[in-house]
Amino acid sequence: MHKGPPAPSLHTNDFALSAAVRQQFIDLFDQLKRTSLDGVGVSRETYGASETAAFELIERHAQDAGLETAWDPARNLIVRLPGKEPSLPSVATGSHLDSVPEGGNFDGAAGVVAGLAALMDAKQRGNTARDLVLYALRGEESAWFGGPCYFGSRALFGGLMVEDFASLHRSGHKTLEDSMRETGTDIDFLKSGQKILDPARLACWFELHIEQGPVLIAREKPVGLVTGIRGNIRHRRIVCRGEAAHSGAVPRWLRHDAVLAMSDLLVRIDEHWRILLEWGEDLVVTAGVVETNPAEHAVSRVPGEVTFALEYRSQEPKTLDSFGALLQSECEQVGEKRGVTFDLGPPSATAPAEMSPNIVDLLEGICTECGTDYEIMPSGAGHDSSVFANAGVPSGMIFVRNDKGSHNPHEAMDFDDFFQATEILNGAMQTAARDRKEYRS
Amino acid sequence: MHKGPPAPSLHTNDFALSAAVRQQFIDLFDQLKRTSLDGVGVSRETYGASETAAFELIERHAQDAGLETAWDPARNLIVRLPGKEPSLPSVATGSHLDSVPEGGNFDGAAGVVAGLAALMDAKQRGNTARDLVLYALRGEESAWFGGPCYFGSRALFGGLMVEDFASLHRSGHKTLEDSMRETGTDIDFLKSGQKILDPARLACWFELHIEQGPVLIAREKPVGLVTGIRGNIRHRRIVCRGEAAHSGAVPRWLRHDAVLAMSDLLVRIDEHWRILLEWGEDLVVTAGVVETNPAEHAVSRVPGEVTFALEYRSQEPKTLDSFGALLQSECEQVGEKRGVTFDLGPPSATAPAEMSPNIVDLLEGICTECGTDYEIMPSGAGHDSSVFANAGVPSGMIFVRNDKGSHNPHEAMDFDDFFQATEILNGAMQTAARDRKEYRS
Repeated sequence: MHKGPPAPSLHTNDFALSAAVRQQFIDLFDQLKRTSLDGVGVSRETYGASETAAFELIERHAQDAGLETAWDPARNLIVRLPGKEPSLPSVATGSHLDSVPEGGNFDGAAGVVAGLAALMDAKQRGNTARDLVLYALRGEESAWFGGPCYFGSRALFGGLMVEDFASLHRSGHKTLEDSMRETGTDIDFLKSGQKILDPARLACWFELHIEQGPVLIAREKPVGLVTGIRGNIRHRRIVCRGEAAHSGAVPRWLRHDAVLAMSDLLVRIDEHWRILLEWGEDLVVTAGVVETNPAEHAVSRVPGEVTFALEYRSQEPKTLDSFGALLQSECEQVGEKRGVTFDLGPPSATAPAEMSPNIVDLLEGICTECGTDYEIMPSGAGHDSSVFANAGVPSGMIFVRNDKGSHNPHEAMDFDDFFQATEILNGAMQTAARDRKEYRS
Repeated sequence: MHKGPPAPSLHTNDFALSAAVRQQFIDLFDQLKRTSLDGVGVSRETYGASETAAFELIERHAQDAGLETAWDPARNLIVRLPGKEPSLPSVATGSHLDSVPEGGNFDGAAGVVAGLAALMDAKQRGNTARDLVLYALRGEESAWFGGPCYFGSRALFGGLMVEDFASLHRSGHKTLEDSMRETGTDIDFLKSGQKILDPARLACWFELHIEQGPVLIAREKPVGLVTGIRGNIRHRRIVCRGEAAHSGAVPRWLRHDAVLAMSDLLVRIDEHWRILLEWGEDLVVTAGVVETNPAEHAVSRVPGEVTFALEYRSQEPKTLDSFGALLQSECEQVGEKRGVTFDLGPPSATAPAEMSPNIVDLLEGICTECGTDYEIMPSGAGHDSSVFANAGVPSGMIFVRNDKGSHNPHEAMDFDDFFQATEILNGAMQTAARDRKEYRS
C-alpha cells in the first residue's frame, strides 16, 4: 500500500484557465466583434482592412502578454513563445481570422484566440522544451474571391498557384493580387513558390474551430476530435435526358420520364449511402440544384430533361473512388431500366486530409485527463488543417460545440464549451512541447 | 339446312369506300391544309377566319354531295342526311375544325372529313331510318384562349359560362366574345344558357380522331376504340419543405433533405402506379416542373425546399379519389420518415367521361365485320366527346393510328389507317341508323 500523500489525480484539470483569464478572452472576442461589425453580422474580408484590423488586435494582445510576434511574407501573423531547446521542431496552433461577408464572430477567430490563451498560459507555467507558435492565418474563406481559399496556409508551404493571384474579388473590381498588395504582402516571394515554413520544423499542428454542423449539439458533447477532413467529388450539373411527351396521351410503358429516373437514381444512392454508413464507411452524399427544362416543362407533360448537382464526401480516397464507380453503375442501370441517359459531366475533386492518429490519441488522453466529454468525428467542411496535414505536419483539430451553424451572424458558441476546448488545446500543446515525442508515424 | 343462295358473309366489308371516293377525301385534306398553312404548320384559329374558311370548305363539299347544311347559334356547321323516320333520334358524328397554332392538319379535321365521307356513303346506299348528322364543331383547342376549350360542343348543350366569353386571346388583344361576334355567333343566345340541341334527340354520338399518343404505333394496330376519356387531378405546385444545411457539416441523421424526400415520394408513387396498372386500374401519373429554391440552393447545400407539379388521370372517379388519398398518405409517411412537409396546394379537377359500353360493343362488332384489328384503350387527352357523354348522349370514339403526336406539324396519319377507321365509323353509323336499338343503358 502506498502510504505517502496522494499523487495529484490525473482527473484534475492541469490546464484550467482562471475566471479572470477567461474574462480577458471573452473581452477579446468582444473587441474582435466591434472591429468588424458590418450592420448585419461580422465581416473580416480576406486580405482586406477589416481582416488586418483583427490581426493587429491579436498582435497587441500577444505583445502585451510578452509574446514574440512577427509577420511572414503572406502577412500571416506569427506569435511565438520560445522554448528552452529552439533546435527542436515547434508545436504549432492557429486558425484564420477572416470571415464570410455578414458572418459570425467565431468561425476562425475562436482558434486564434484559443491559441493565444494557450501560449499565455504556457508562458505563465514556463518550462517548455519546444517553441510554442500561433499562426493567425489569412484568407481561409472562399466567399471573397469566387472559390479559391486557404491562401494564408497554402502560402506557408509555397502552395499558391498563378491562378490564385488572378482570382476576382466578389465586387468584380480587384484581384487577390491587388488585395494582397494593399495588405503589404510580398507577392514576388509568394509567386516564387518558395516555402515560408519547412513542415519538418513543426512537430505537430493543432487547430481549434467551431463545429459548423449540429453533431455536437445533437450528441450533447462540448468538444469534437477530428479524425480527418473529407475530400469531395462534385458533379455540378448532371443532365438526365429522357423523352418529353404529352401526359394524357403517352402511357407508362412508352415513357422515358427524366424526373422519375432522377428520383429512382437518388433513392438508390440514398439507400447505398445508408448501408455504407452502417458498414462503417465515411461518406456524405448530397444532391440539389434540381431543375426541369423550363423551355419544355409543363404540368401535363412527361418531363424529358432534368438537371441536378451531386457531391459526395469522404475521408477515404478509396471510398470516393468506389462510390464514383457505384454512381456510374447505378446511372447505367436506371438509364437502361427507364430509357434515359445520365450525363455526369466533368467532376471537380478535392483530396481528403487525414488527421494524425497520434495527435488524436494525444487529444483523447488530454480530454480524459480533463474529464471532458468528446465526440470522435470527421470534418465535412474544409479547414486550414488540411493544408498542414497534406504538407506532412502531424495535425489535429478540436471542434467546439456551436448552435445555428456558421457563415451567419447567429453562430452560438457557448463560452463554457470554448474554454473546455481551449483547455484541451492548452493541455495538448504543453504536453507536446514538454516531451521529445515524434508524432510523425 | 338452308338451301337458298349463301347469305353475304359478315366478314366482307360492307362499308368500304372506293378508290375514287378515297382520293376525293385525300384531296379534301389537301384543300383544308392549303386554306390554313401558317408558314410552319397549320393554324385554324378558334372562332377565327382560318377556322371559318375550313368550315366553308366542308359546307361546299357537303352541298355538292346533296347533303343539307345549316349553322347553329354557336356557328357550328350541321350537315344532315335525312332518314325515313325523322321522329327517331338521330345518329350523330363530328369533331372540331380548329387546330393549335402551328399544328397539324389532322387533329380534329380527320373526324369531320370522316363524318362527311360516312354521310355521303350512306346517301349513296340510301335506306336509313334515322337522320345521320355531322357536327363540325368550333373551338375545341385550349391554346387560343388561355385554357378554356370545347366551346362549340359546350354551346350545343347550353354549357358556356360567363367566364368563357371573357377568356383572353393569346394575342392579349381580344376576348372570345370579340372573336365569336366577328364570326357571326349569336352571343345572346349562348349567354342565355339555352340548349341548341336536346341530347335526347341524339341516339348516339361517334367521334373519329387521330390518336395523340404512340399506343397504336407501338401495338401495330390501325384503330383504337375508346372506353372513356380520363379525368384528371392536378397539383400545379407542391412544395416540399425540409431544412437547408451545409452539406459538409450536417450528417445524414440530422438532415431534412427536400430533394431526397421528393424523390422518395415519386418512387413510391411510381411503384404504386405500376402495381395499380397490373391490378387493372386505369391510372396515369405524371410529375414534372421541378425546381429547388434558387434563392438558397447550391452544390454544397442540403436542399431545403423543392417544388414540383403532379397530376393523375383516370377514367374512374373512384380511382382518382383513392389515388388522392394514397398520395396524401405517402406524403405523410415520407414527411414523417424524412422530417419534411409536403404542401399539396389546392388541386384542379376535370371529371372523367365514360364512353357508352353499348357503343363500344357496336364498334367492336363492326371492326370484326370489317376484319380491322383494333385496340381497346382509354383516351388520356380530352375531346368534344366528353361533352356529349356528360350531356347523356351514348358516345364512342374511334382513334386512328398517328405517328409523331399531335399539336405539331409532323402529325403522320397514314391514309390507309384513316380509311379503315372511316369505314368503321361508316359501318357503325349506318348500322345505328338502320335499326331502332336504344343505346342508352
